[in-house]
Amino acid sequence: MRDAYHEELDSIGDSLVEMARLVGSAIGRATTAMLDADLNLAESVIAADEKVDALQRDLETKAINLLARQQPVATDLRIVVTSLRMSADLERSGDLAQHVAKVARLRYPESAVPRDLHATILEMGQLAQRLMAKTGEILITKDVDLALQLEQDDDAIDLLHRTLFQHLMDDRWKHGIETAVDVTLLGRYYERFADHAVSVARRVVYLVTGDYADEVDPATAAAAAAGSEEAPAEEA
Amino acid sequence: MRDAYHEELDSIGDSLVEMARLVGSAIGRATTAMLDADLNLAESVIAADEKVDALQRDLETKAINLLARQQPVATDLRIVVTSLRMSADLERSGDLAQHVAKVARLRYPESAVPRDLHATILEMGQLAQRLMAKTGEILITKDVDLALQLEQDDDAIDLLHRTLFQHLMDDRWKHGIETAVDVTLLGRYYERFADHAVSVARRVVYLVTGDYADEVDPATAAAAAAGSEEAPAEEA
Repeated sequence: MRDAYHEELDSIGDSLVEMARLVGSAIGRATTAMLDADLNLAESVIAADEKVDALQRDLETKAINLLARQQPVATDLRIVVTSLRMSADLERSGDLAQHVAKVARLRYPESAVPRDLHATILEMGQLAQRLMAKTGEILITKDVDLALQLEQDDDAIDLLHRTLFQHLMDDRWKHGIETAVDVTLLGRYYERFADHAVSVARRVVYLVTGDYADEVDPATAAAAAAGSEEAPAEEA
Repeated sequence: MRDAYHEELDSIGDSLVEMARLVGSAIGRATTAMLDADLNLAESVIAADEKVDALQRDLETKAINLLARQQPVATDLRIVVTSLRMSADLERSGDLAQHVAKVARLRYPESAVPRDLHATILEMGQLAQRLMAKTGEILITKDVDLALQLEQDDDAIDLLHRTLFQHLMDDRWKHGIETAVDVTLLGRYYERFADHAVSVARRVVYLVTGDYADEVDPATAAAAAAGSEEAPAEEA
């Protein structure tokens, strides 16, 4: 009986790792789809999000069954409850990757991103993907140090986000309003994606150390650290 | 013992209702702060979000204690788990109201919203506030019919969101990029706020009827219903 129990607990952990893998891949492919104006790739990212949603539903069912039948307490109980919240973060990250892909689809055959912003957006996409890969690793290894490193990657994304806004606010912006709207939303999607990855990593820290690191909202913390009152998007 | 148990369960429900009340008030006041460029009001909304965050933390603690000590099964278990997710939705709604207030603060003494968009934004704010008030009522009454009505209010917000985008994309837009960025983000904040309210209401329906209404992402459903492939923000 006890073995089945730990198998169920492991299975929940495996689902989280798989979700992180899928959404990390999705944000990378969505970024490529957008920069290359690759419609097929965009469609494939959009369709693949269903897999992430299904994993979350399964995880929720598994968690509720485990709570009902095994009635875990103490650490195991916290693991199950926290897993539910982590799965919500990961599911939402998947939505955000899908949003990027939908912007790509909407602007096809053009790229939604003007040429002079490709490098910034590419870097945001790569950082977001790397952040999520690390989150997946943290879910497996419970490596608290790696989780704390993640904050730096998140700061790097915030910095890129700010760069994006400086471009937008520059008087020489020549790409019109539609592109400004696209770039504003894309910046927010990447930033929120990173927030969710960091949030998952913080919950792992909390499970391992018992510290309520997750009480701090990543976006708020980052904005406060960066003194970003000047950039409304950082408040997002 | 059984009485203490139901008291704890009720207390979780009360916290959700109180959170809905606070964030409903917050989005209304944030909207006023923005349209009237009222800095004090904006600051008060920003500060008040701490109360919502504290309620969520308390709720989470209460839920975990209840799970550990009372080990509920069946419906009660689903209520507790679903309450955790609803509290996350409400906490996030509070963040979004706070984001609106921060835009107001950022642009003070100007209003972030140009005069010709005041009516649209005011209506979005009022609808968002009404939606959340109804969600609070649904949390108390478990009124499934009212929960289904909420979808229409959500459609109305999506429609206003689209109106906002038409203004933005109009060749006669004369408010510059900075304002376009603000309006893009504000539109998204209101839309996400409404999504979270609808999500909470759907979870109530699910608890009452056992129907997995919450498997459908509100934003996706609304976007699909409105055929909004033409407006990227609707994908948000």
